[in-house]
Amino acid sequence: MNDMLPIAVDAMGGDKAPGEIVAGAVKAHNDHGIPVVLVGRTAELGDHGLPTIEASEVIEMDEDAAGGVRRKKDSSLVRCAEAVRDEKASAMLSAGNTGATMASALFRMGRIKGVNRPAIATPIPVPGARPTVLLDAGANADVQADWLVQFAQMGSVYTTKRFGIENPRVGLLSIGEEAGKGDILRKEAFELLTVAPGINFVGNVEGRDIMTTHVDVVVTDGFTGNVVLKALEGAVKTIVKGLLAAFASKPEYKEHSDALLPALLELYATLDPETYGGAMLLGVDGVCIISHGSSSSIAMVNAIKVGADMVQADLVGALRAALKPAE
Amino acid sequence: MNDMLPIAVDAMGGDKAPGEIVAGAVKAHNDHGIPVVLVGRTAELGDHGLPTIEASEVIEMDEDAAGGVRRKKDSSLVRCAEAVRDEKASAMLSAGNTGATMASALFRMGRIKGVNRPAIATPIPVPGARPTVLLDAGANADVQADWLVQFAQMGSVYTTKRFGIENPRVGLLSIGEEAGKGDILRKEAFELLTVAPGINFVGNVEGRDIMTTHVDVVVTDGFTGNVVLKALEGAVKTIVKGLLAAFASKPEYKEHSDALLPALLELYATLDPETYGGAMLLGVDGVCIISHGSSSSIAMVNAIKVGADMVQADLVGALRAALKPAE
Repeated sequence: MNDMLPIAVDAMGGDKAPGEIVAGAVKAHNDHGIPVVLVGRTAELGDHGLPTIEASEVIEMDEDAAGGVRRKKDSSLVRCAEAVRDEKASAMLSAGNTGATMASALFRMGRIKGVNRPAIATPIPVPGARPTVLLDAGANADVQADWLVQFAQMGSVYTTKRFGIENPRVGLLSIGEEAGKGDILRKEAFELLTVAPGINFVGNVEGRDIMTTHVDVVVTDGFTGNVVLKALEGAVKTIVKGLLAAFASKPEYKEHSDALLPALLELYATLDPETYGGAMLLGVDGVCIISHGSSSSIAMVNAIKVGADMVQADLVGALRAALKPAE
Repeated sequence: MNDMLPIAVDAMGGDKAPGEIVAGAVKAHNDHGIPVVLVGRTAELGDHGLPTIEASEVIEMDEDAAGGVRRKKDSSLVRCAEAVRDEKASAMLSAGNTGATMASALFRMGRIKGVNRPAIATPIPVPGARPTVLLDAGANADVQADWLVQFAQMGSVYTTKRFGIENPRVGLLSIGEEAGKGDILRKEAFELLTVAPGINFVGNVEGRDIMTTHVDVVVTDGFTGNVVLKALEGAVKTIVKGLLAAFASKPEYKEHSDALLPALLELYATLDPETYGGAMLLGVDGVCIISHGSSSSIAMVNAIKVGADMVQADLVGALRAALKPAE
């Protein structure tokens, strides 16, 4: 991988920045041989031995996204996106402000020709199987039906590149499996998806299908997608907490739950969002990975590996080809 | 409870009808002293000893709802709703076709004065605590902002009557906690909810808050609500399946998981939708309970108990008072 341009990592973004971010970048480089460049206030990053790009400003986690990107031209996020645009980096990655990550990528890298709106694709864990790719997981709160068709096309390309699934099954998230079930937007999108090229549309799917092997790509608007993503994350957390409380409810349970710990940890690893290294912003003209704000160094290693994989698989080239406007 | 009008139970509705439905009705009557009247093809219901209302037709689970109600005037669902309208029953209950249950209730009982649209309120389990009430869980796929305000008002009244929570905290389901986060609908609804009378509006909540004690009532449109409800049900199922698979992955785990079974079953009971006896259609002029299609006799007993409680607590009277249009 040493002939690859480095992955530009926003060292200032995330609840555990810069410590865990830098640690993850170092580990990705040392253990996996992935070239990385750290972007941020270089004096604050400690000893790491990696190349850097200086950026004096930070867009905070809760700062207004578009305003932050406009005002803070020397922020780590803007500099990450510029590094990709200027071919000094092959991909950008941040665990910081999601809106500002999207805005930086969109304003500096631009959109792939033909794409109406970029969308966030997030892998949803399925125990014992490959994850389901959900998009849009939050980039566009209000959408049009034809954008959903592009989300389906981009999600298909990504799922093939990322998980090696040829001709992935694409479902439209709705309420009821039959054609024509859903709100006005879904009814219109269903018609368009039925005739759209380049996808294997299997019809409507329901909320209960997301964490199963019934479908590979689930398409929805960014409002519903974000609500569902966070609801599922919350459910996993709540159930794990409930399990721990149940096992602690009687002293005699302890030896048994200790004996089962390896099995429980293995299951938890398949349910943990950190395992999949974050979400991908599809439709911008470059690889852009959006990691969870709470990302640890392990999450960062996974995210950097995904970034390197997607660069080497030429995800963006494949998206360009799939979304090419008709001549 | 013997002076109460009986609960009209649709004996023909649900995947396990009529067997489990009738068994649940008998049990609710015998064990809890709740008066019940079974509605359906009385010759097909076996020995039960309960009063009946004959209805020769059945609206099937996947039948077009409005069409079914229009065509099948002698269906068990239509006869249930008429029994409430005609004061022969105090409430109706069905585990059958959800759309047709709503349509029967709406067309035969009518709406409470001032209500724009009825909404489905569903309790979402929170381990170790009272459930969160989610509405609308599927009655209205496309909504207006002012309907969401009524959902908030109706959900508050219901949560107080059902779970004894005074001044329940109402959250608007959105993406981001800050005011102004969300899609166009949510932004408009947020403004209206801030000044709406009769509710304790605590602002936006996110998907991850639903299965927690952070909020008592979560308000959303019926599309998002139904997707989230089914996603959460799916997550519970998937994780339980994953746990069982993890415990079965090595023979030496068996004695330990057997020892933990009581704790696991107790946790599962708090996560099982059957525990709460189904959803309530709020805004029609009578008590109408919509149970899960897969309801067992135990789910039916719980649902009949909820129906009786809501009749005795005069839920509909309280909703009428709360939704009364300004003079």
